[in-house]
Amino acid sequence: MSAPLIECVPNFSEGRRPEVIEALVAPFRNRRGCALLDHRADADHNRLVITLVGRPEPIKEALIEAAKAAVAYIDLETHRGGHPRIGAVDVIPFVPLRNITMADCVTLARDFGERYYQETGVPVYFYEEAALRPERRQLEKIRQGQFEGLKTAVSDPARRPDVGEPRLHPTAGATVIGARKFLIAFNVNLGTADIEVARKIARAVRASSGGLGHVKGIGLALKDRGLVQVSLNIVDFEKNALYRVVELIRMEARRWGVNLVETEVYGVVPAAALLDSAAYYLQLSGFDPKQVVELRLLEMEEDRESPGKETL
Amino acid sequence: MSAPLIECVPNFSEGRRPEVIEALVAPFRNRRGCALLDHRADADHNRLVITLVGRPEPIKEALIEAAKAAVAYIDLETHRGGHPRIGAVDVIPFVPLRNITMADCVTLARDFGERYYQETGVPVYFYEEAALRPERRQLEKIRQGQFEGLKTAVSDPARRPDVGEPRLHPTAGATVIGARKFLIAFNVNLGTADIEVARKIARAVRASSGGLGHVKGIGLALKDRGLVQVSLNIVDFEKNALYRVVELIRMEARRWGVNLVETEVYGVVPAAALLDSAAYYLQLSGFDPKQVVELRLLEMEEDRESPGKETL
Repeated sequence: MSAPLIECVPNFSEGRRPEVIEALVAPFRNRRGCALLDHRADADHNRLVITLVGRPEPIKEALIEAAKAAVAYIDLETHRGGHPRIGAVDVIPFVPLRNITMADCVTLARDFGERYYQETGVPVYFYEEAALRPERRQLEKIRQGQFEGLKTAVSDPARRPDVGEPRLHPTAGATVIGARKFLIAFNVNLGTADIEVARKIARAVRASSGGLGHVKGIGLALKDRGLVQVSLNIVDFEKNALYRVVELIRMEARRWGVNLVETEVYGVVPAAALLDSAAYYLQLSGFDPKQVVELRLLEMEEDRESPGKETL
Repeated sequence: MSAPLIECVPNFSEGRRPEVIEALVAPFRNRRGCALLDHRADADHNRLVITLVGRPEPIKEALIEAAKAAVAYIDLETHRGGHPRIGAVDVIPFVPLRNITMADCVTLARDFGERYYQETGVPVYFYEEAALRPERRQLEKIRQGQFEGLKTAVSDPARRPDVGEPRLHPTAGATVIGARKFLIAFNVNLGTADIEVARKIARAVRASSGGLGHVKGIGLALKDRGLVQVSLNIVDFEKNALYRVVELIRMEARRWGVNLVETEVYGVVPAAALLDSAAYYLQLSGFDPKQVVELRLLEMEEDRESPGKETL
């Protein structure tokens, strides 16, 4: 039996005070079975995004520790920042990675939500795959009005938390916990300074206004470089692969006489998302990811581990 | 410290008798630190190719066991097959994979060659990066005349083995041992039945007649499918990437009005070779293989291991 591996990307409402950021990150460092892949604090957003990969148990332990630090140090009554938020710990998504199903991650999220409330006193909303009400699948809906608005709206039965009393924690607000697919943050930079081109292409490509399913996108200006960017979230890369997004954007850009200058993957990405594109462009027939040496080695490492053994 | 990992692809002169094939493969099964990725017996070639990945020590132990079985069961005096060979164990290449240099693999090959002769009585020639004479870098040169011709030619000082007396083992011949880069076997199938198109393109693409460095290729007919194939060995995929080979073939085929139907990777391939092509076609800027979740996980697994620990 191979150990289940998840990704977890907790978002905290602190992007400015270095000592608080360190207190939030510290529980994830040097913890067996929990790998800290990335952490980025954004001062404008006043937000910290931590990317973890590992086994569920150690990740949950570390999350509780970090959440207690967040409750101790962050006060939403005084918190200001460019990113919408309802909690000191704002969002905790669990993402199935290897040897674990989405259904397992839903159970994991809901069980963790109960424990989280017990240990921190912060009420919990479940979102995406773990949502208990269909209207709570979308994070934006749960976060409507943000901390300030939700303080009063929370007594409305429609806005009542899924775990906890119908009132926010006075300083730490509420936390949104859930399960979702792996999200790829992907940017496409275009050779024009005309922001309208990026906006039109974003509209043509994203699911909300037609385009490709499971793709979100907006048009942005990269003023320093004289370029524009279509900034994308690919919410299900198995349903719409990177190559399809890139080639559709290339096609739409051609209509405006604009070239695709470069693309960027932000943060981490599963091997399958890139191998899939390699196979498409190289026209590989009968390709099996098991042909990739490193993936075979990783599988062997996993198989080597007995279920109870305390390794990653 | 991370454990060194090599690939090793021993070739044996037996592709027909199942019980002998099993005796040759068995030493590589269920051996800690030695992963049997693939083994393919070809009856026409009367040859067995085994693909291994793992740590040098267990691979060397298993090779000695398998070589003793080959010496016991294979008699080159009666062996017939379509593939050139000089030995019961014909070729053993060591390939650096992770945490080991080519220079280390050269030392490994030469040390192993000495031990191999001591334990089997089969003389050894060193080839490619481990060659002691420049003219022995090429396997074809060492194998000239095959077992039958080398039996008498071996007394010529120019053909004398690098390890052992100037005579072949009476039934097991000689073995070529060396170190080389990872070799990718790659086929490109073209939408024509005209074998001349495949031959012309092979000549245009391969290093020996111009074309791309580190690429070998021949044109073949796929009669059953009404297609032709450019069958390639990419000897150094870091110097000439898959995408460059594919796009050059596409360009040459266009000159004959022929389309590229599909490509095939035969056997295993390092992740870098495919990620490189994904990055090219997707126009990824600033991409780092550490962004790939599985590669990061594998690195963590390796870092977890203490140098003396008996794990892969």
